[in-house]
Amino acid sequence: MRIAELSDRSGVAVPTIKYYLREGLLPAGEAVRANQARYDERHLQRLRLIRVLIDVGRLPVATIRDLVNDLDQPDPDLHHALGRALQSAPPNAPEPAAAPEVSAAEAEVEALLGRHGWQVSEGAPARRRVAEVIAALRRLGNTEMVDVIDRYAKAAEDVAAVDLGLVRAAEPEMVLYRAVVGTILGDALIAGLRRLAQESLSAEIFHDRKDSSD
Amino acid sequence: MRIAELSDRSGVAVPTIKYYLREGLLPAGEAVRANQARYDERHLQRLRLIRVLIDVGRLPVATIRDLVNDLDQPDPDLHHALGRALQSAPPNAPEPAAAPEVSAAEAEVEALLGRHGWQVSEGAPARRRVAEVIAALRRLGNTEMVDVIDRYAKAAEDVAAVDLGLVRAAEPEMVLYRAVVGTILGDALIAGLRRLAQESLSAEIFHDRKDSSD
Repeated sequence: MRIAELSDRSGVAVPTIKYYLREGLLPAGEAVRANQARYDERHLQRLRLIRVLIDVGRLPVATIRDLVNDLDQPDPDLHHALGRALQSAPPNAPEPAAAPEVSAAEAEVEALLGRHGWQVSEGAPARRRVAEVIAALRRLGNTEMVDVIDRYAKAAEDVAAVDLGLVRAAEPEMVLYRAVVGTILGDALIAGLRRLAQESLSAEIFHDRKDSSD
Repeated sequence: MRIAELSDRSGVAVPTIKYYLREGLLPAGEAVRANQARYDERHLQRLRLIRVLIDVGRLPVATIRDLVNDLDQPDPDLHHALGRALQSAPPNAPEPAAAPEVSAAEAEVEALLGRHGWQVSEGAPARRRVAEVIAALRRLGNTEMVDVIDRYAKAAEDVAAVDLGLVRAAEPEMVLYRAVVGTILGDALIAGLRRLAQESLSAEIFHDRKDSSD
């Protein structure tokens, strides 16, 4: 298809597509004339991925370039490439906290990893991210949430087991694509399901409480 | 304390504090002179909450005003006020999808609620949000994630049970505060824990696979 059709089908404006081509986010089309190229379904799929990474993942263009380069040249060490891809997919960043609070919380994260037997590299950004959330919860007085962190960790482990089962079942060339989309959209999915379950449980708990006090 | 000390301790600039006062996000201090007011620990706590709602929750000022009004005038129907507070706390919004796809996905959400016995009001924004994620996953070809949505729902229910246990244990006047902070920071906590668990499981699965093929 020509660039105009690619734009129509993806909903991404032609100048934006040209920008992604220049920045190396989108591979060049097949040249059919001096100033005309042809694109295929893979370009359309890639464009949709780029839009999700920008709109939902809020990733900067340089990070997206690294990610799609991993997608295009599969690393034989899938664990390494997958780690890189997953680390690039941020949850909502918490408000930065003062360094000493976060350092203390990093030691708590280390202890948590030990309790759950999780092997996580020293430099994994998620260590710092979880430590920042712990520090923010303490600063806001929600320490009881930190007290039950092992229960949240257990649920997160259940989620990750489903995630990795899906990744494992994917065709090798789709592993990273599935992992990136699944991780970013998965955060939104779990947050939404959590809201639904909260509303249902809240109705049980607080309506019951109200009934019994009437 | 005076506004300068409130600014120092909260890390929020004086003009910003004055803006929150004008907008009704922060209650007025106790007037000690014509142009001087005194603030206390509750103002400090409220300021920290506002910053989290803006920085982490990315909520608009009008929504925050509604939320803090709920906090200041506890609704006797806690379930209602809690529902309002939780619905205002958005996960990362997925890319908007074409209406027919989302409508089809809304029927899937309805079926999901039935399978799990979740009672959720018709107008709950999380219904639409989960439907949008489902539609986005289908559009991106990650349909296998939708196929196992019940396993994600089970994990989300475990998370919500921990959430509601904490809310239930909170002092009545702190219920909404705990629920809002816990829901927003909880999304970031779970996303971070999910990354840690993913990395650990990925190491097991893909390093094993590599070893066995060597």
